[in-house]
Amino acid sequence: MQETIQTLRTRIDALNLQLLEILSERAKVAEEIGELQTQMGTAHYDPVRETEMLEALTQTNPGPFTDATVKSLFKSIFQASMQLEDESDKVKYLTSRGTRGEDTVVYVGDVAIGSNHAPVLVAGPCSIESREQLEAVARFVSERGVTLLRGGAFKPRTDPYSFQGLGVEGLQLGREVCDTYGLKFVSEIMDAADLPAFAEYADMLQIGARNMQNFTLLKAVGRSNKPVLLKRGLSATIEEWVMAAEYLLYEGNPNVVLCERGVRTFEKYTRNTLDVSAVALAKLETHLPVLVDVTHSGGRRDLLVPLTKAGLAVGADGIMIEVHPNPAVALSDNKQQIDFGTFDRYLEETGYHKKLSQKRHEVYGF
Amino acid sequence: MQETIQTLRTRIDALNLQLLEILSERAKVAEEIGELQTQMGTAHYDPVRETEMLEALTQTNPGPFTDATVKSLFKSIFQASMQLEDESDKVKYLTSRGTRGEDTVVYVGDVAIGSNHAPVLVAGPCSIESREQLEAVARFVSERGVTLLRGGAFKPRTDPYSFQGLGVEGLQLGREVCDTYGLKFVSEIMDAADLPAFAEYADMLQIGARNMQNFTLLKAVGRSNKPVLLKRGLSATIEEWVMAAEYLLYEGNPNVVLCERGVRTFEKYTRNTLDVSAVALAKLETHLPVLVDVTHSGGRRDLLVPLTKAGLAVGADGIMIEVHPNPAVALSDNKQQIDFGTFDRYLEETGYHKKLSQKRHEVYGF
Amino acid sequence: MQETIQTLRTRIDALNLQLLEILSERAKVAEEIGELQTQMGTAHYDPVRETEMLEALTQTNPGPFTDATVKSLFKSIFQASMQLEDESDKVKYLTSRGTRGEDTVVYVGDVAIGSNHAPVLVAGPCSIESREQLEAVARFVSERGVTLLRGGAFKPRTDPYSFQGLGVEGLQLGREVCDTYGLKFVSEIMDAADLPAFAEYADMLQIGARNMQNFTLLKAVGRSNKPVLLKRGLSATIEEWVMAAEYLLYEGNPNVVLCERGVRTFEKYTRNTLDVSAVALAKLETHLPVLVDVTHSGGRRDLLVPLTKAGLAVGADGIMIEVHPNPAVALSDNKQQIDFGTFDRYLEETGYHKKLSQKRHEVYGF
Amino acid sequence: MQETIQTLRTRIDALNLQLLEILSERAKVAEEIGELQTQMGTAHYDPVRETEMLEALTQTNPGPFTDATVKSLFKSIFQASMQLEDESDKVKYLTSRGTRGEDTVVYVGDVAIGSNHAPVLVAGPCSIESREQLEAVARFVSERGVTLLRGGAFKPRTDPYSFQGLGVEGLQLGREVCDTYGLKFVSEIMDAADLPAFAEYADMLQIGARNMQNFTLLKAVGRSNKPVLLKRGLSATIEEWVMAAEYLLYEGNPNVVLCERGVRTFEKYTRNTLDVSAVALAKLETHLPVLVDVTHSGGRRDLLVPLTKAGLAVGADGIMIEVHPNPAVALSDNKQQIDFGTFDRYLEETGYHKKLSQKRHEVYGF
Repeated sequence: MQETIQTLRTRIDALNLQLLEILSERAKVAEEIGELQTQMGTAHYDPVRETEMLEALTQTNPGPFTDATVKSLFKSIFQASMQLEDESDKVKYLTSRGTRGEDTVVYVGDVAIGSNHAPVLVAGPCSIESREQLEAVARFVSERGVTLLRGGAFKPRTDPYSFQGLGVEGLQLGREVCDTYGLKFVSEIMDAADLPAFAEYADMLQIGARNMQNFTLLKAVGRSNKPVLLKRGLSATIEEWVMAAEYLLYEGNPNVVLCERGVRTFEKYTRNTLDVSAVALAKLETHLPVLVDVTHSGGRRDLLVPLTKAGLAVGADGIMIEVHPNPAVALSDNKQQIDFGTFDRYLEETGYHKKLSQKRHEVYGF
Repeated sequence: MQETIQTLRTRIDALNLQLLEILSERAKVAEEIGELQTQMGTAHYDPVRETEMLEALTQTNPGPFTDATVKSLFKSIFQASMQLEDESDKVKYLTSRGTRGEDTVVYVGDVAIGSNHAPVLVAGPCSIESREQLEAVARFVSERGVTLLRGGAFKPRTDPYSFQGLGVEGLQLGREVCDTYGLKFVSEIMDAADLPAFAEYADMLQIGARNMQNFTLLKAVGRSNKPVLLKRGLSATIEEWVMAAEYLLYEGNPNVVLCERGVRTFEKYTRNTLDVSAVALAKLETHLPVLVDVTHSGGRRDLLVPLTKAGLAVGADGIMIEVHPNPAVALSDNKQQIDFGTFDRYLEETGYHKKLSQKRHEVYGF
Repeated sequence: MQETIQTLRTRIDALNLQLLEILSERAKVAEEIGELQTQMGTAHYDPVRETEMLEALTQTNPGPFTDATVKSLFKSIFQASMQLEDESDKVKYLTSRGTRGEDTVVYVGDVAIGSNHAPVLVAGPCSIESREQLEAVARFVSERGVTLLRGGAFKPRTDPYSFQGLGVEGLQLGREVCDTYGLKFVSEIMDAADLPAFAEYADMLQIGARNMQNFTLLKAVGRSNKPVLLKRGLSATIEEWVMAAEYLLYEGNPNVVLCERGVRTFEKYTRNTLDVSAVALAKLETHLPVLVDVTHSGGRRDLLVPLTKAGLAVGADGIMIEVHPNPAVALSDNKQQIDFGTFDRYLEETGYHKKLSQKRHEVYGF
Repeated sequence: MQETIQTLRTRIDALNLQLLEILSERAKVAEEIGELQTQMGTAHYDPVRETEMLEALTQTNPGPFTDATVKSLFKSIFQASMQLEDESDKVKYLTSRGTRGEDTVVYVGDVAIGSNHAPVLVAGPCSIESREQLEAVARFVSERGVTLLRGGAFKPRTDPYSFQGLGVEGLQLGREVCDTYGLKFVSEIMDAADLPAFAEYADMLQIGARNMQNFTLLKAVGRSNKPVLLKRGLSATIEEWVMAAEYLLYEGNPNVVLCERGVRTFEKYTRNTLDVSAVALAKLETHLPVLVDVTHSGGRRDLLVPLTKAGLAVGADGIMIEVHPNPAVALSDNKQQIDFGTFDRYLEETGYHKKLSQKRHEVYGF
């Protein structure tokens, strides 16, 4: 029997090569069609044509495959040809490493994020509450070498009765305070209609987790040229996150920084679950810088140091963290913001202390 | 020893009553403060005052409780008093059964959704692709007694290169076709800027899962008086979903219908996991009508019938389902839309067949 | 250009048919090999042979497909042939509808579960705590027509310091009380070593969610012929759940009832999320009866009625529910068990009232 | 009005202090009761007594609190007292940092895991398939300084028709090969009945993710004194994972190493989602060593390096990884095991290269 099997296997080998030959010829013809379609501006994928081909095949199906299997096999073959045609299109995924090999560096003013630049630290309060509060934070963090100040003026709040932010007044405060302390101002935009105000007052636009698939906002921000910090949605797959970035690049804005902030799971000890694999895969499959928001990822002060270490170890280009002069009385997120003393210990325990001074030297040349 | 324990327990009983007395007195004083604050228009919750009180307590803490336990206990006490003050505020949760005991009925034209009205069926294609396609569906479903036609003109697509919908032209088509066949037109709005077009052409505005916490859109739609179909976010908690509805009611629009459409889990056999508990709890805790989108919940044609039965059994006020003349060539969702023959079997197997004719009788009186 | 495309498409059509011819011939040869292998008792899938074939193909790959695409395409082809060979094997999935078309009915004594038998109700306390407690429940539920009493003697507890059950003494109590009140006794087995005691005292063995993939236990219980109630794991996929049942059938025990008990999600309002799609799919893809545990699914008393309705609507063959004479002092699950008054209201609101009397009539003939 | 508020607040301050006084006195009395109960060996928590106290309170409730609020507040007070009584009990959580401040070091023979010992690397094939296969791996990894060889003899497989491992023969092979190459042998135990064989042949018992809450197995392994590697369940909370370890310590086995291996989420790009927060929290809240299984966490070869870096950065005491001479033909997990060349690159890119030689120096003193 072993011999018979051997004979039959030789037959299989010959059929394999015959199949490969015809498949390759078919692929070349399909490529020609694809090129013509590109010239004519028509879609490569034509579901009606596909349906017709599949019907023609099942009508002459001699067995032993069932019609369903024949359809499934030929769909694989069609798809492979399509992929071939679309390889050039694939290069058109603007976020892909295939399109652009080298790391993108996003500049927020003179602050460089990504590639071999030292990791940045985006620090500041959850919400901008008053000039006093914001000045206190700005003075404090700038003295430690932080160059990017975060602060929300428009706050996405689950409950309509919660503090919704100071609005444009908050943006103005952010601008003034940042100018005083030589900082760049990062703030979340929730509405395309606010773009002119953000263009005037902010240096970097944050798109929050809840708006990651707000395609209207993505398109509008994509048409501006402001640097963007794009947070991953609460339970967005990595693919959806990268495709949200694709919207921004597709509309013309190449200055996109991704930001992982934890995803929803069943775990109760943490607010969200930091997904370091997502950081690694975003770095592997796109050329964009990636930050990690350690405040929202864990929602626990005792995790800020370890999550920062994990984020940087896995390749993140920086960290985002919330600092507040008096977290106990903060108008939002008062359980997870840290005070100044804790921030100093954080800098030391994570080694950011050295990274920041090093960074100033490298980036500013003094 | 048992006796000693008995004596000590008698002492505990006395202390319990003493505590209750003081707690009650404290609550009355707190109520008075709350009333004054309401008159003055200042917030009831004052974190600075709370911090001061807690510090005063821990400074005189005689033990055996640790300071942390004292803080935690008094936070419970403060919170209980706050809840008391806010009981009237709680009535202000406009979505709550506590505010409004009877079921809300939302009217889309003469079509009633909710309370003891027969369950509605919202049917139609995922995307509006052409007049021919939409007419075919509209003619077909209206003949079966369907009164609400769904059809997307603006499509939220993960990939920027996917079909994005016909836009305003699609809305116009929807309007014309609905007028021809006596249907109400339900379509998804993604951008507050499109409200005037939707006001002109659509009968009911759908807010999609990805925009459930697009607070800008919620506020804008809340300021219109169009009926709204608010889908639950991909992994929104029930609380977040209800709070999104609260935004709409808070802004002045009471015509809100909730729609459960499955949540993200680890399961691979289904696209999403239909959460019937969420339907039950939304009905228990709010007075709003709730629909179930059976197409997106399972993402499988073989689940449409059982999920419809489950949704209605658990108390849903209607079902949403995608129908297409030729699903194989649909420009979106082509794996889960059903064709006309399947739709007829669906009506029969779910018993919707009778519900729809019954409904026409009840609602239209003929 | 349109014409050129037409000519090229005709060429494609011819190549398609050529491919189908060779594919079909290849499939026949592969089938012959498969038959020989079956006779020889060797595995059909041979990864070394597959690797060799793929290497032979990529070595002669003329393009334009990349080697990766060639590999992927031929893996599809190999797989399709394998499926063909294994169609008979597939019939060997003992749980599958393909193997057995009609519904399995599992008999626990004279109580029938499954197919067109009226839905059963398995009721009883979480843990057996004392003779008094168990007698109270047994008397009460048997008067209402319940025929299956649940009660845990061995309790899987997260914390080693929690009540672990009365052990064999609990099983004996269960047996005696069930005999007194004419009930069948369902209890959870956690250890294969306890099988003799369960064989003596219990009528149906429950395998709990935490042991769904305890393959040692599955194999041991599979070698007994006691009816089994197999709960779905806390976050088991439907496929894993069905495969756990396959272990039982494979070992020789056909008396398997599946039990959905909710899965873990991010939701906080419920303890677990009842997955009605899993019930529907288990009914579609297997021939086994399926129950729904409404107590653990929601973990909320106010969900017992709606989840029961949903479970039965979606096709469940019965419901499992926890009842306790005084839930407040229960040694486990004291937040979700219901007392006797609540149970009576539950029977009425779910209509189980009638189902149970109807059932007694049908099953017992009086 | 501001003045009135000030007066009322002074009244509140006085009442706060009065409450604190009585609460403290109550706590002292409760402590006395607790001590007596400890002496008598009766449980501290008595639900009947609690119910009586709550009823006594609601019967005399003067308002304005509702009865529900009174119950809830006093439950907080009772709980705080209980915690006080149980502070000594809390020290009894054997896994807790509160019980044991210094890090536990687990010795597998002369290999130290935990505390300030260099991170270990547990490497080897998923399954032991043959002497040749295992020897090839053992020779290879021992040359690189690896000291712990993993290899499954009993395999937990979802499908009963998959390769189930070589059983005891595999254990014997593991022992012989490890002795030849001076390695320690780590293998998964699935059944308490196999303990004697494991006692004879294995150096460290692995409890797999699917058995994390197999309490029978935990108790049996806890009564042995073999080192244990306890994997986190597929979707176990951190609390459940630590409590599973508590079972082992409670039964007398202090040699427990925790192992995070990714949890189930909605993400499709990875097999599981590595939860680095769990590693950090396990290190913070217990004194046990923690490893990270990078093979199962991601299920992708391109994630092995970044996940190793993240795991070590967050404080893991070692890494577990699957290596196979020819992964393409492996009998299990053939998509995620790595071959020898890839393993060498892995050692270099993660810096494990140096850690292992360093380790040999530190641990063995040569």
